[in-house]
Amino acid sequence: MDLLTAIKERRSCRNYLPDPLDDETIRTLLESAVWAPSPANNQPWEFIVITSPEVKESIFAEAQERRKILFEKSGWKWLNRYEVDFLKTAPVIVAVVGDPEKTGADMFLDEGYKAYQHACAAAIQNMLLTAHSLELGSLWFTLFDKSAMRRILGVPAEKDPIALICLGKPGGSSFQTPRKDIAEKTTYLR
Amino acid sequence: MDLLTAIKERRSCRNYLPDPLDDETIRTLLESAVWAPSPANNQPWEFIVITSPEVKESIFAEAQERRKILFEKSGWKWLNRYEVDFLKTAPVIVAVVGDPEKTGADMFLDEGYKAYQHACAAAIQNMLLTAHSLELGSLWFTLFDKSAMRRILGVPAEKDPIALICLGKPGGSSFQTPRKDIAEKTTYLR
Repeated sequence: MDLLTAIKERRSCRNYLPDPLDDETIRTLLESAVWAPSPANNQPWEFIVITSPEVKESIFAEAQERRKILFEKSGWKWLNRYEVDFLKTAPVIVAVVGDPEKTGADMFLDEGYKAYQHACAAAIQNMLLTAHSLELGSLWFTLFDKSAMRRILGVPAEKDPIALICLGKPGGSSFQTPRKDIAEKTTYLR
Repeated sequence: MDLLTAIKERRSCRNYLPDPLDDETIRTLLESAVWAPSPANNQPWEFIVITSPEVKESIFAEAQERRKILFEKSGWKWLNRYEVDFLKTAPVIVAVVGDPEKTGADMFLDEGYKAYQHACAAAIQNMLLTAHSLELGSLWFTLFDKSAMRRILGVPAEKDPIALICLGKPGGSSFQTPRKDIAEKTTYLR
């Protein structure tokens, strides 16, 4: 698929068919992820490929609980309505886990220890674009408590569970959210 | 260009030709950026397109100073050798600035206030891939002090200057850094 088509057509999918993904597809997705740039090529990412129904159920239960807590804290109505069933129905969830020790020189900067996260986010974007090019739906999910997710996935305290990426064949069409005109977002220093 | 080709061929460029980029090219790069996903489609990014030699000189001076400070703090020899002349020679630098207030519900999470950064990183990755598809070199640069960069670019304290993206025609070939086998990076929960 053409790069710009993938970038513009990708959208978030919250409705998955149960069809499993084969190993080659998962390998293609992860290989695209690791070609992202990272500080000093430290490759600060790890992937946990989750197909276990029990683990998905635990993730779903945590997200449900967290959604309620976030609704109480924020008062944001959409959180009260937000259904997270896709955490159970997506055939695969890839947890992307970052290693703060591989953040490079930004560990010595004020407001630092972030570059490893940015590299993981770039790897995730590669994965989402590749999923779309394979006619798969994807969702970048972050509404979970990190301590709870470490416990569920067996991630040690010193690692950072950055996101859960739901992947699978889409069960219907997803709407595309609009974007603001870039003129509103851009200034020039000529 | 094919998506997977762009993902695998993109590399960091530290040697630029002085040829300016036209407005349409810059528009294509920024448009590709804003199609990244973001929390609740908050689009927490802003772009400062820098072509001013004076501003690039100030950025270069800050990066030189910071490089020395980071070398003293870390003792990492590559920082002592690292030439940042590309900050002067790249015809365009795009500063990507994030808005923490647009981070979405993760502002209520422990270890939160990160999702806006991740969205900006995904937007940057789109921009790097698009640059490669246009036969442009790019570099994701973060070795600067955020307070200093706010001052140089006129960014208010409540916004987050996340990265400087150097862009321009490459002045030579860049080597591709290898990647670890994904088997080393992946575990399965079946």
